[in-house]
This record gives sequence, structure tokens and C-alpha cells, in this order.
Amino acid sequence: MSSENQSRLVSVRHEVEEELRAFLTRQSHYLNQISSDLSPVSTAITSFLLDSGKRLRPLFAFAGFASGKGVLDKASTRAMASLELLQACALIHDDLMDGSDTRRGKPSIHRHFETLHIQDELEGFAPQYGLSAAVLLGDLSLVWADQMLNSAGLTPKQLLDVVPIYDEMRVELMAGQFLDIHEQTQKHTDLDRSMKIARYKSGKYTIERPLHMGAALSSHSTPELMHALSEYGLPLGEAFQFRDDLLGVFGDPSLTGKPAGDDLREGKRTALIAMTDARCSEAMREESRKYFGKNDLDDKGIAILQDMIISTGAKEELETMIDDLTGRAMNAIENPAIDEGARTFLTELALIATKRSK
Amino acid sequence: MSSENQSRLVSVRHEVEEELRAFLTRQSHYLNQISSDLSPVSTAITSFLLDSGKRLRPLFAFAGFASGKGVLDKASTRAMASLELLQACALIHDDLMDGSDTRRGKPSIHRHFETLHIQDELEGFAPQYGLSAAVLLGDLSLVWADQMLNSAGLTPKQLLDVVPIYDEMRVELMAGQFLDIHEQTQKHTDLDRSMKIARYKSGKYTIERPLHMGAALSSHSTPELMHALSEYGLPLGEAFQFRDDLLGVFGDPSLTGKPAGDDLREGKRTALIAMTDARCSEAMREESRKYFGKNDLDDKGIAILQDMIISTGAKEELETMIDDLTGRAMNAIENPAIDEGARTFLTELALIATKRSK
Repeated sequence: MSSENQSRLVSVRHEVEEELRAFLTRQSHYLNQISSDLSPVSTAITSFLLDSGKRLRPLFAFAGFASGKGVLDKASTRAMASLELLQACALIHDDLMDGSDTRRGKPSIHRHFETLHIQDELEGFAPQYGLSAAVLLGDLSLVWADQMLNSAGLTPKQLLDVVPIYDEMRVELMAGQFLDIHEQTQKHTDLDRSMKIARYKSGKYTIERPLHMGAALSSHSTPELMHALSEYGLPLGEAFQFRDDLLGVFGDPSLTGKPAGDDLREGKRTALIAMTDARCSEAMREESRKYFGKNDLDDKGIAILQDMIISTGAKEELETMIDDLTGRAMNAIENPAIDEGARTFLTELALIATKRSK
Repeated sequence: MSSENQSRLVSVRHEVEEELRAFLTRQSHYLNQISSDLSPVSTAITSFLLDSGKRLRPLFAFAGFASGKGVLDKASTRAMASLELLQACALIHDDLMDGSDTRRGKPSIHRHFETLHIQDELEGFAPQYGLSAAVLLGDLSLVWADQMLNSAGLTPKQLLDVVPIYDEMRVELMAGQFLDIHEQTQKHTDLDRSMKIARYKSGKYTIERPLHMGAALSSHSTPELMHALSEYGLPLGEAFQFRDDLLGVFGDPSLTGKPAGDDLREGKRTALIAMTDARCSEAMREESRKYFGKNDLDDKGIAILQDMIISTGAKEELETMIDDLTGRAMNAIENPAIDEGARTFLTELALIATKRSK
């Protein structure tokens, strides 16, 4: 990979962040004009968005845009950046649904507002205030995402081309999220179901649809390009989700910003867990029930479950699947419908999505 | 009012409901193609939307549309109907935040999914499943609202005109909702703050912005028309919210679909409560603390608080304010910027919004 292209992705990320900052500054001012009581809202969303984040979805949108020979301007940068606000909604609501205390090493939004309630000695029940704030801040992030996209300054044609993809992506996201919470309520794990969740929550939402949105914004969007980007994006998206599953069990808390073994404590029915379960003896399965999904799971319990995932071979198999899926994605980059200038971006992003440690 | 115009509003409501039904049928089919596990989602949202509802926001949009000489077609009907999906999001999330068990005489969405969890003997914690389902069904309703608006078949000009109003309305809604939950945490009631919440939650969201959206869809949208509709919509919206406040305390459960005195049990800091509080003696205020906002508030406690609201004169004062505000709205209808043919619609809707018993 040329260092020129690598620095190009870094500069795109920087431009995305600058547009987010400008949008959030304007919107915070707007809220403050309604009432100064809204300042904790804008402060929390701004910090949530700007303090950290990989900006993966805007970067995939940029790669799709470059695949269609798009030349970046402020309007298209803003449209891509809006995906970060949608992701903020997904994460804020996700943490609330999972009861997660932390996100990116900081308190999750519902915990943050719960703490404000206690610190400021407000009336009522602090967890209910935290819940309500998280529901509304997620909703507001979702609405701001639309507003940022709609007011980006795109041409009417760009807007009319991109919006149907954007809408379908969001329906797929919510469908994937519901299947995910529903999966946690099932008596038995099921690899097919877990794979479908990975496909909708990540394959489509994180990678394929952002690529398509970027392509739709470019001037050379063709059915062949859309198809080629799906051939790249869908397997890569699944690989991305499987990496997430592995990090949720084996990730280093100092890098992930989440406690060690967090997915084990939450009892998340991921593809990794379904694969482990399918390879377990009945005795192991019995043993795992003592630890999996227990709120008070400690380091010893985590280590026992981790050993099980390794000794059944599930971890290794998932790593192999990630490699295979990434390989399929890499092959798809050679499709002639994709502009040559975009290939190094797609290659680099495939590595970032699957080799990451956070 | 001519019976011809009255039946016109009834037929518009019917057309709005038919478009909602068609949209929901198509979207339910789409979800079902992803997974049959999503059928409780589409069933619940469809029933929530189609079993009842006054369709006030689409009807106000229609009145704004008629004010600008708009002639109704399928595309504009769909755009107006999309407001019902947005309202579904607001109500589903509102019930979750308030911990309300019922909506329109049926279980609220979080309670409905909690019950499904128990009935189907699912794994995990039923209330957490109910919470997650309510978060996601609200999010999906919000996304479907956009999708219905964006895919309504409007001309590009109509879409570009209406979307900025739609986006601003949704930001105002979320801001109003946050101010509302924040108000419940304050040590003291404050009439000015409660009035501002009424303005954002209802004045703008329920009435002014739907009118503006309708006007933007029409062919005669002018700054004068927008201004005239604000002069009508803002006072009427406040009157609408105050009627809601009164129904939350004095409403007949068989009509409201909510338990008697629900707002008293939830301890809602409405304008009505702020006005009562300002007129109370210290002894009465002391007495009210025994009942107001108590989960186990019974009929006797409700009657004591109701008496207080009546004896301080707060109820009567709020009724007078509703009359005054409605009068201001009625006067604004005479503005020449408003097409004559729309005036009877605006008059009828003003009565529906303020004289209702549910």
C-alpha cells in the first residue's frame, strides 16, 4: 500500500471529524437557544462523537465514492460524516439495552445521566432519568444524522439517489438489532441465526450500505459497481462482526474500552458462542452454564470460558473464517467496475476492519 | 361548519389510514423476508398504528396543505400519513420512559413484549426484553416515518421543501421531550418552564410544524402563509397540551385509555401542576406531597389532589387559558394568506384539538 493513500484515509477521517465538529457546534447552539437546560444533551453527544471513534462507516462510504471516481467536496464529506451520528444512536441505545456501564472507556450515556442525577441531587429515580436520557439522546442522534445528510449541500440528484439506500440500511440495522436481542432469549444457540444477525448488523450496516451510499454520491454509480461493492462488503462485514465477537471475549480492556470478557458476562449469543456450543460435550455445556451470562462473572470464570472456546477449536475456526471471508473480499477488489484509484483504500480498510484490536 | 367539509376531514383520515395500512403491509412483508422472528415486531407496530389514533398531525398537515390551495393526491397523502409513524415512535419511547403500562387501553409496547417473553417462556429477564423491544420498535417507527415520506412519490421540489421543516420539527420534539423528563427532576415547579415544554412538545410538534409541512407540499407556500399558520398553530398547540394536562388528571379512563389520574401518579410537572403549586398554601403543598408522584396512589388520593387543583382555581384558570388561546387561533384563521376553502378545516380541527375527551 502506498503511504500516499494511507495518509489520504487519515486526511479523510480528519475532514469527517471537522464536519462533525462544525455540525455539532451549530446544533448545540440551536439547542441552547431553546433552553440552557439542554446543554448536558449537546455536551454529552459531542463528547461521545468527538472524543474517539474509528469513523469506519464514513471511510467505507469514501471508498465506495472513490470506487465510482468521486472527487471529495464538503457536501459529500458531510453526507458521509452523518453516518457517525447514526452509529451514535445505535451505540447509545445498544448500551442501554445491554445494560453496559462503559463505552470507549467512559461511562455509557445512561450511566452518565444517572451520575448527573445523583451529583446534582435531582428529584426522582436516577436510573429512570438515565434510561430516559439515553432513549432521547439516541433519538436525537438519529434525527441529527438525517438533518446532517439532508442539509449537506448535495445536489437534488445525489440526495434522491442516496436516500433510499440510507433508509433501507436503517431498517436493516433495526431488524438486525431486534434479531440480536431476540437471539439472547432463545433456549439454544444456532449458528445460522447468529450468521444472519452478523450479516444484518454488520455486513450490511457497517460496510455494504456505506459503500453503496458512497457510490450513489459519485458520478459513476452503475449496477455493476454496486454489485462489486456487495461482493467485497458482505463477506468483509461478516469478518468484521466475527472480529468483534472475538474482541468481546478475548479483547484487551485497555484497548477496547470495555471490561474483559464483557460479552461472556452479558451472555451474548454470538457466532463464536454458537460454534463453541456446537462443539462442546454435554459436561462442558453444563459447566459453562455456571459462568456464561452471569452478572458477577469474575476473572477466573472468564478464563474457564475462554479456555473452553479455545479448546473446542471454535476460536481457531472463527479466525480461519475471518481469513477466508477477508480473502473473498480482497478478490472482489479486482473487479473492473471498481476504479483503480480506490483499490488501495478498500485493501487498507479490509485490514483495519478485521485485524483491529479495538 | 358545513357537513361537506366535516365529511372531507373524515375521508382524509380514511385515506391516511389506507396509506398507512398499505405501507405497513409492504414493510411487514419485507421484514418477514429477513426472518420470521421479526413478525412480532411488524404485528405490534401495525396494531399500535391502525387500531386507533386521532390522526391529528396528518389532519393538520392537510389543513396547511389546503391553506396553500393544495389538491390532495396519493403522494401528498402518504407524506402526511408518515407523521403517524413518527408519533408512534414518540409514544412508544414515551411510555417506556414514563413506565406507563397502558396506551389507548392496551398494554404499552414494552409491557406487550415483556408479556410475550413470559408467555413464550423465553430465556433471560422479561423487563429487559420489553425495554429493548420498545427502544427498537420506536427506532424502527422513526426510520419508517422517514422512509414513508421519502418514498411517497413527491416531486423533488416538494421533497426538498418539506424535509428541512420535518427535520427541525423532530429536533424540537426531542428537545421538548428532554426538557419534559428534566422538569420531573426539579425541586420546584415553574410555570414558564412548563409553558416552554408545552410549546415545544405540542405547539410546534403537533400543530405548527405539520401545518408548515402541509403548506410546503402545496403549490402556494409563501412566507405570509407560513406566518399565518404559526399565528394559528402555536396558541392552539399550547391549548392542545393544556387539554392533555387536564385529561391526564380529570379524564375518563374509558375514553382516554389511561388509568384515572395517571399524570398524578406519575408526578408529571405540567403547567396545571405548576399553577396549582403557585396558588397552594404551604399546608396544602405539604399535604400534596403525600400523594403526588406516588406509585400506589389510589382513588382517594387522586380525589384529594383533584380537589386541590379545583379549589385553588388552577383548573378554571387553565380552562380560561385554553379558551383564550383557542380564540387567538380562531382569529388567525381570518388571515387573507390562508385560502378560504381551508378555513372550515382549521376551525373544525381547533375544536377537535381543544374540546376533546380523549
